[in-house]
Amino acid sequence: MSRYMCMDTLQFLMFDVHKIQDLLKYTRFSGYDVDAMKIVLDSAKSWADKDFYPYYKEMDEKPAYYQNGKVHSHPILKTIFAHAGENGWLGPYFDFESGGTQMPHSLANGANHILESANNHIPGYLGLTSGAAHLIATFGTDELKQKFIPNMISGKWGGTMALTEPQCGSSLSDIETSAHHIEAGVYKIKGQKIFISGGDHEGVDNFVHLTLARIEGAPAGTKGISLFVVPKFLPIENDKTVYNDVCAVADFQKMGQRGYSTVHLVYGEQDNCRGYLLGEANKGLEYMFQMMNGARIDVGMTAASTATAAYYASLQYANERPQGRKILNTGKKDINTGQTLIINHPDVRRMLMLQKVINEGALSLLFECSKLIDTSHCDTGEAAENSHLLLELLTPVAKTYPSEMGRIAINNGLQILGGYGYCMDFPLQQYLRDIRIMSIYEGTTGIQALDLLARKIPMHHGKALHILIEKMMETISEARLDPELSGYGDALALKVEEINKAIQYLLTFSEKGDYENYLADATIFMEMISNIIIGHQWLKISVTSRKMLHDKVTTFEPIFYESKIHAMKFYFKYEMPKTKACLETILHADKLTIADQEKELIF
Amino acid sequence: MSRYMCMDTLQFLMFDVHKIQDLLKYTRFSGYDVDAMKIVLDSAKSWADKDFYPYYKEMDEKPAYYQNGKVHSHPILKTIFAHAGENGWLGPYFDFESGGTQMPHSLANGANHILESANNHIPGYLGLTSGAAHLIATFGTDELKQKFIPNMISGKWGGTMALTEPQCGSSLSDIETSAHHIEAGVYKIKGQKIFISGGDHEGVDNFVHLTLARIEGAPAGTKGISLFVVPKFLPIENDKTVYNDVCAVADFQKMGQRGYSTVHLVYGEQDNCRGYLLGEANKGLEYMFQMMNGARIDVGMTAASTATAAYYASLQYANERPQGRKILNTGKKDINTGQTLIINHPDVRRMLMLQKVINEGALSLLFECSKLIDTSHCDTGEAAENSHLLLELLTPVAKTYPSEMGRIAINNGLQILGGYGYCMDFPLQQYLRDIRIMSIYEGTTGIQALDLLARKIPMHHGKALHILIEKMMETISEARLDPELSGYGDALALKVEEINKAIQYLLTFSEKGDYENYLADATIFMEMISNIIIGHQWLKISVTSRKMLHDKVTTFEPIFYESKIHAMKFYFKYEMPKTKACLETILHADKLTIADQEKELIF
Repeated sequence: MSRYMCMDTLQFLMFDVHKIQDLLKYTRFSGYDVDAMKIVLDSAKSWADKDFYPYYKEMDEKPAYYQNGKVHSHPILKTIFAHAGENGWLGPYFDFESGGTQMPHSLANGANHILESANNHIPGYLGLTSGAAHLIATFGTDELKQKFIPNMISGKWGGTMALTEPQCGSSLSDIETSAHHIEAGVYKIKGQKIFISGGDHEGVDNFVHLTLARIEGAPAGTKGISLFVVPKFLPIENDKTVYNDVCAVADFQKMGQRGYSTVHLVYGEQDNCRGYLLGEANKGLEYMFQMMNGARIDVGMTAASTATAAYYASLQYANERPQGRKILNTGKKDINTGQTLIINHPDVRRMLMLQKVINEGALSLLFECSKLIDTSHCDTGEAAENSHLLLELLTPVAKTYPSEMGRIAINNGLQILGGYGYCMDFPLQQYLRDIRIMSIYEGTTGIQALDLLARKIPMHHGKALHILIEKMMETISEARLDPELSGYGDALALKVEEINKAIQYLLTFSEKGDYENYLADATIFMEMISNIIIGHQWLKISVTSRKMLHDKVTTFEPIFYESKIHAMKFYFKYEMPKTKACLETILHADKLTIADQEKELIF
Repeated sequence: MSRYMCMDTLQFLMFDVHKIQDLLKYTRFSGYDVDAMKIVLDSAKSWADKDFYPYYKEMDEKPAYYQNGKVHSHPILKTIFAHAGENGWLGPYFDFESGGTQMPHSLANGANHILESANNHIPGYLGLTSGAAHLIATFGTDELKQKFIPNMISGKWGGTMALTEPQCGSSLSDIETSAHHIEAGVYKIKGQKIFISGGDHEGVDNFVHLTLARIEGAPAGTKGISLFVVPKFLPIENDKTVYNDVCAVADFQKMGQRGYSTVHLVYGEQDNCRGYLLGEANKGLEYMFQMMNGARIDVGMTAASTATAAYYASLQYANERPQGRKILNTGKKDINTGQTLIINHPDVRRMLMLQKVINEGALSLLFECSKLIDTSHCDTGEAAENSHLLLELLTPVAKTYPSEMGRIAINNGLQILGGYGYCMDFPLQQYLRDIRIMSIYEGTTGIQALDLLARKIPMHHGKALHILIEKMMETISEARLDPELSGYGDALALKVEEINKAIQYLLTFSEKGDYENYLADATIFMEMISNIIIGHQWLKISVTSRKMLHDKVTTFEPIFYESKIHAMKFYFKYEMPKTKACLETILHADKLTIADQEKELIF
């Protein structure tokens, strides 16, 4: 079997760079120790080798599809859900007593990286199920919990999140699906939802759609949206269920992630679809964002993992494919020597390293976020609050960077294979098709950029950004103590200045109420700050690596740590300079993207 | 029918910016006038509307494929070849007396833009046929010409170029297909060629494979490669043909351009395949490069045109799709107003303009190159030589920029459609899949970058670059005379300095024979200089537009010209700053992509 991810790098990031074993001090995780954590990762790897990776190509070739009232999906899904239920993979965040595995997010996300790298079409089915169950656990009544959670975390029923409607995707204030009150907590649901991932497939017997809808008479906009638990089959008594008048009526055939079903749901065609109100009325969007924030981190992880798998596929090719010769000091090549492996060509090596720094940098950020989820839950007071704020700030970045840059990474991986990369017999084109949706799922890149600049940067008077910069300065100080790293510490310090410059300039707009200009280049700002945030991750990785080398830690060979430092240098040479271009664009006086009604341009 | 390109912009670029009517002064083109040129474009448009655009989606859904000894292809190809033959589309560069249309390349490429935008799966079949015929016309004996050309330019037989073999793609010195001498000019050919575009489909009766092979005993490397005309069916007498033991044995199923057949050819399985030597022995690669250089421009045109079609598809969506609301000076949105069209959102507008500046900038460069082809043929002495040198320098850029940046343009187009962009029912995903191969066809981006830096920049002591910079300075001088453009002229002048800085730094390596470091970042240099070259095109476009406005030319509305100037400003704000990052990378002291045998990194 080809390598699709690297257990060494994963463990290095989890245990050496981000020290997730620190979490063991919290009582919630006292059931674990480092060995137990590693066993979880090993089980994920065995499972991924057995049930995920072997079906990756096949799920693309035989996509999930809707026909005659039924969504056909790959048979392995049944096996997957059964195994997931039996082995606790659907309840990582549930207490032991509720049948969960009470895992740190940091650990579950490590396992998730393995599964996503092996086959990114599958884990979404599981993630949505456990995410939906978790939402019910957080906001539901005891009755609702009993009705749904056990069947979900045992893998019998699947979960989805149903937000998008034909007339509203990015703009959730325009949701029209309606809820008509019948009795306490129970409503009649009517409407349509599109782009529903993981809906109505053959892996489970029932579906629990966490559905946003508007109770009749509710205020306009997002303040009138409520969240409902809407099962496909309504549980009645003694494990019996009855059809609840909600089902798929069509599919969306996609350019990638073709094994992951995407459907169009119709609710209440016979005016007989029941939904249970979750929590209070009109607070639906707020609740949904608990799941949404997790889902955004999950999308980032899916993107980083897909790009990781593509990287190892291109690396394998580069290590096996002879082509061309080394250029000599005469400027010529010696035709009488054999061809060299393409990994020895500088441009191929550049494309490999570019992939590596994007993927491992993204993965490192995702573990930073995962640990913040854990500490924001387990700490109290200011420590918890600070973790929460930083997590809020980093979430749009952790979703966007892996999605946007992971695609560029895979594009380089495909290029390494030349014409073969474009052929269906090789996996690179599939990885490239698969990852393309990540910039759209759970809020497009444009939406993430607005979230970052309009909400996350200004919140609490800029406190989250302040915390982030403090963390960067800590790493910079550590780097400056080491002669090999001090220059890179200085380089990152200059980048922190660039962030400040951009913010100061942008504030001149928001301060005078010109939000349109404040936000016009939000996507460029996102690109700039993401680049710097990943640069920070690489400096952290290098500080850790230097410590390991200095302390002669033998977990891995010295060259393992040296290669990480080499990668950091690559990032600082090839990627970080791009932030200057972003800054120049942000500071540019020409305002060119604001529509002018008086003078409509010809496009 | 949806718009897939813009006739106004095409004519503006051809006749106003690049003034291709200047070519009418040459006797070769005296059969044309401006009206006749426009009629050619109009016929291309009618043909594209009728036979190209309507089959674009279908050719993707029902790809060309090999089965039981036969390559199945879309039935429209028969109609296309017949029409092309009857209407002179296969002989644009042949004399009237040989049945050609004796067209300027600049005009043929204008027509080609229309056809490629309508359906990029089709024109390659035609381009390879006329390119192969042209190669035979240039280097072949009268006998060869008579045997092949009439049937090719009448659309009865198709042509291909057969270079790549399983063990050699980028490294042509390793070609192994062999040629065994039989009689004067005739050889027995034996070997295999892969990735042969336009091979063995159902649109024509016979195929003429222009094949690189090595005559037994020839020197090693590229100096021992000869070019052969190898028909699938050998013409004997009275229009009869006999099977020549070369045929497709398999196909390559690709992620895109699925209607364009790509096959694996086997020559001489029964040891009975004849090839006619074209021109002199061992000069095959030199000859092939006549076709190759044209093919590289064609690939650039295919990429720019595919991206153009994607642009108009995303523009249409942006003009029709309501979503979200304008942000008010309070920082809020008014939920009680209707949704706005997404073209009014700055980020969507940014993505549209990004596409526009990439596509029209690329197209403008392609017309600059096309005109250079014409002037290098029609002029004499130093003028012809200068055109030729500049064309040589610009060819790798004209192939690479549209391929690399056109893909980024389409990616933004897809993003504008959100989830719909990812669905098979909408065309954006197909454009994105189709364009991906352009960075690989006819020499990958890495190969183009090496060609640029290793061959084109140093040739004739840097004369080509000198000519290019002179042309840039001319445009800058013109811009500086106009208060609205002078600042942009100054900005471009600074970019010229950046090119000089990069070259001076790189020369420190080549001067000491360190070609590996000289070339290590060739791709980054390509990215930088391409960006500046396109910036130059935009400044030219703006100088022209300002003149038209000043002279009150009424070909188009004033807003048409003003929108072009607006686009130039967009390019200078959003794209040109990126060259600084490239320069910083090129000048960076860390050398990180040269393989070190002593210290093998862990990837």
